[in-house]
Formats: sequence, C-alpha cells, structure tokens
Amino acid sequence: MKLKYAIVGTGALGGFYGGMLAKSGQSVEFLVNSDYLYVKENGLKVDSVLGDFHLQTVSVFAKTTNMSPADVVFVCLKTTHNHLLKDLLPTILHDNTVIILLQNGLGVEADVAKEFTNHAVAGGIAFICSQKVGAGHVAHLDLGRIILGLHTGDKAHVLQQVCDDFVDAGVPAEVSSDLNLIRWRKLVWNIPFNGTTVVMNATTNRLILDEATRPLIYDLMHEVVAGANACGVPLSEEYARKMVDMTETMTPYEPSMKIDFDHRRELEIEYIYTRPIEMATAAGYDMVRVRMLEQELRFIQKSYL
Amino acid sequence: MKLKYAIVGTGALGGFYGGMLAKSGQSVEFLVNSDYLYVKENGLKVDSVLGDFHLQTVSVFAKTTNMSPADVVFVCLKTTHNHLLKDLLPTILHDNTVIILLQNGLGVEADVAKEFTNHAVAGGIAFICSQKVGAGHVAHLDLGRIILGLHTGDKAHVLQQVCDDFVDAGVPAEVSSDLNLIRWRKLVWNIPFNGTTVVMNATTNRLILDEATRPLIYDLMHEVVAGANACGVPLSEEYARKMVDMTETMTPYEPSMKIDFDHRRELEIEYIYTRPIEMATAAGYDMVRVRMLEQELRFIQKSYL
Repeated sequence: MKLKYAIVGTGALGGFYGGMLAKSGQSVEFLVNSDYLYVKENGLKVDSVLGDFHLQTVSVFAKTTNMSPADVVFVCLKTTHNHLLKDLLPTILHDNTVIILLQNGLGVEADVAKEFTNHAVAGGIAFICSQKVGAGHVAHLDLGRIILGLHTGDKAHVLQQVCDDFVDAGVPAEVSSDLNLIRWRKLVWNIPFNGTTVVMNATTNRLILDEATRPLIYDLMHEVVAGANACGVPLSEEYARKMVDMTETMTPYEPSMKIDFDHRRELEIEYIYTRPIEMATAAGYDMVRVRMLEQELRFIQKSYL
Repeated sequence: MKLKYAIVGTGALGGFYGGMLAKSGQSVEFLVNSDYLYVKENGLKVDSVLGDFHLQTVSVFAKTTNMSPADVVFVCLKTTHNHLLKDLLPTILHDNTVIILLQNGLGVEADVAKEFTNHAVAGGIAFICSQKVGAGHVAHLDLGRIILGLHTGDKAHVLQQVCDDFVDAGVPAEVSSDLNLIRWRKLVWNIPFNGTTVVMNATTNRLILDEATRPLIYDLMHEVVAGANACGVPLSEEYARKMVDMTETMTPYEPSMKIDFDHRRELEIEYIYTRPIEMATAAGYDMVRVRMLEQELRFIQKSYL
C-alpha cells in the first residue's frame, strides 16, 4: 500500500525531498506559505545536481485545513516556527500518522512528542546543501542523503517504507535505530559552521581555509564530539576530521542559519545551540567555545529582531 | 631641573597627556602626522571632563629629525606602527632619555628594549576614555589616570619626576614597581571589550547590559585573571568584578580597537591578544575564550586589510 505524504513547509528541504517523492510517483500534498499562488500556477522547480526537474502540477495548499489526512507528515519548517504545529497539524493527522521532523538541532522531537502524545514522532536528518532561490524554486547544490530515526511510537515499518520510497526516488536514504546519535552527528557540522558563518559573515570555505578560523572550527567540532561523548553518544574525533575534509571539498556554501541571518529572520539558536549545551552541561561537560558562539549569536539576533 | 618631553604620536592619548603637560607649563614637543599643518596653524584642542582647553601655539613637528633630543619620549603610536620606531626615535634620544610606551597590550616594552638596548624603557598604562574627534582635536570623555612602570634601565627617579609633573598638571598619576602587574590589570578590561565590541559591532554598555554577552564578558575577564595568575601575577576575581561595575557606570564608549575597526585600520591583536595568550599558554593555562576572540578578530581583520 502506498503512503500518502504531506509536506509542511515547502522550502529548501520540503521542496527538494517532497519534490523528489512526487516526481517518482508518490502521492504528496504540499503546504506552501508565501509562494502558494505562484506554485499553484507554475508548479515546483528543482535545480538539482542529481538532474533538474520541474513538476508542472503539484497538490498545493495554503492551509492544512484543506489537505487530506496523511500517513506521513514531513515537518520542514524552521524550528523557530514549531509553536505553529499545534494548530497546523491536527487536521492532517489520522490515528496512524507518523510525524517526521526534518529539522535541525537537538531535542525537537521530544518537544513535539509532548504536544502529540498519540502519534509516532520521528526525526529526519538531511545531509544536504540546498537553498530556496525563488518562488517555487529550489536549488540542490550538493550531497542529499537523508537519515530517518524513530523517537516515539511503534511505526518502524512505516519509517522503513519511507526510506524505500526515497531510495526509489533516487535519494540516498537510511533508517537509523539511534536518532540521538545521528542528531549529535549532524551537530558536529552544524554547530561550528552555522554560528561562525553568521558571526564572521562568511562562507564555509573561507572559514575552513583561513589559518585563524580553521583551528577554531576544529576546536568547536571537538567540543561537540566531547559533549556527545559526555551524553553517552559514541562519536569519534575521527568523525570531526571527516567533516572538515568534506567541507573542504564541498561547494562553497551558506548554512541555513547564515541564510536566515542574511534575511534577518529568527535564528535556530535554541535547538542547534542551547539544547546541546544544556544536555552536555547536565552530563558534566562544558562546551566553552560553543557557548561563546551561542552568546554571540543571541546578541547579534537581538540587534535586528 | 625641568624635563624636556617629546610626544611621538598626537592622537587620543598623546594629544591629551601631552596637552595636559604643555598646558601646565612643561616643555613638550609634539610629533604630528596627518594633522601637522592644521595643528601648526590652529593649535591643539582638548575637550575634557576635567575642563576644556585650547593650546593656541604648540611645538609641533612633522618629522622627529627636526625635534630636539628629549629627556622623556612618550611613544603614543598604535603598537601596529612600532616597526617605525627604529627610524623615528634615534634623533630625539640622548644618553639618558627614558622611552615610555603609552601603548596597549603585553610584551611591547620587551620588543622595544631589544631595539634600544642603551636606553631605559618604561611603560605607561592609561585608564582613560579619550578619542581623537578631528584634526588637532581630542575628546576626553571619562577617567584619565596614568600609571608608569620601568621595564629596563635605572631611571626610576626620572619616572617619579614624570609622575609628579602629571600630578601638577592635574592628571592622576602614579609609579608602579610592577609594570607586568599593571599591564595584566589593564588587559582585564581591554581583552573582553576591545574584541567583543569589534566582533559584535557594539558599544561597551550594550554588551555589559545584554543577558547573552554579560556572562561572556565576565568569563573573558576571569580567563585573563587566571592567565595572569598562571604567569605569577597576583590579580583577583574581585578585580574583574570591579571592572564590570566600572564599565556599567562609565559613559558608553568605543574602545580603541573598535575605533580602529570602524576606520578599517590594522587592529592591535598582536600585543592585546596573541602575546598574553602565548604567555599564559607557556605558563600552562589555556585562555580558551580569549583565543577564540583572537581568532575571530584575525579573520575579521583579514576581510578588509
């Protein structure tokens, strides 16, 4: 039996992953905010390193109240908008819906699971460089792998089917039995680069090539690894080195927080910085540089929000 | 016997302290760079919380080769220009000249003493808020105390006379027998505020009042105190708290490095950050946040220099 998908938030992530599923023949409904009329008229355009495509007609909605209940709801909003979920989600959930949070940071599933106690909540971690470049228009620049992991509920079989659907659609995907591990793993990249690209107002490759900031990036990564270890999450220093190597060969890239900053939007400081800092601290490890970066980010955000 | 003074660099510090000495009747020659013709014509104007004054005629020079040998040479250049001293100073030195470096940071006397092995070298630490606000025009906004300390040479009596001359001129002054102590003490304020005002692009009072950066300022100060302690310099946590209290009651102020940054000039990273970090590290203490701030500053400076 085919799954019915709902994509809540059709931006860089929702547009790409939802678009790939729709292109491969899956049933996908998209919640679109500001671009609703444009996408209804012109469809969804994805410029991808896996091959460009244009979905002329997509099932697009301005409100979730007009959408059908879905088997799988992908939440692709910024975590800064998660306070909207209690109003957005109820009408697209049925008893067996799995809510997958394709979002950044740590602790986000726990917060959403508190609101939706009767539903399975899962996390999706996207290792991807993609950006929304215009109305109904996403650019997928590099990478693309998605990892799914269950937080609460007994829907492992659904998650596996989602994974298979992605693979069928040409998206490298896998299911992990340890969501916490993959969330921390993603932070090894996200914590150093999201914050420093904002504070230094620079791209990842300038920061990784510069002799002053390169050791800082390393030190930040090592703090995240040590923070994870303190929390009982088995990450290795080796993984940090791999992330640096990957960044060097990656297309110069502005992380999501840098793009949010450039548009003077609220930054995802809470789940990318504050929660990991709190969890590591509670486990007895002080991520000193990460905390300093968080403090700088909070100050910067206050100067324009 | 009266001392003959030479002021090398007539900016925020040289203009104020040299101006106060000249106003009180001391013999002072000023080396002036870009404002030479203006000052020759219009004199030196000081708007001071101690009382505004205007020195209509000052002994002003565009080159040290036209100046007389002085008993006391105040070097009031930025440390980023200290490579010029080997050409600037020789013609204004006699056998007994004391060179006083009225500059920021740590290790600057040692470097200058290596160049001028036959002369007494001293340091001057100014606890002052002053700015050059126009050609031949300095604004003295707050504080003003100067502390002098000998680095090399047997000229303690000259330093005492300089101190007395300052007191006669209405400038709170004292001689310290421990230059290293007062240099580290000054860093307790300089290290947190110079760097963070540049990186955060903000004034001292916004940083000290903000709930995100206030603990960061504290932590940076505590690292400097711990770094000093590691180097055998007896500073207390209490002193850091005093500096925070002082900053809260101080006129909102842009530290010298922030002003250098706003004018896209080279920053005094070497003596304010790198040397203290190196000295603390050599003594076994890693000033983690201070190093991070240094790395951020070096990156920022590279983006415009």
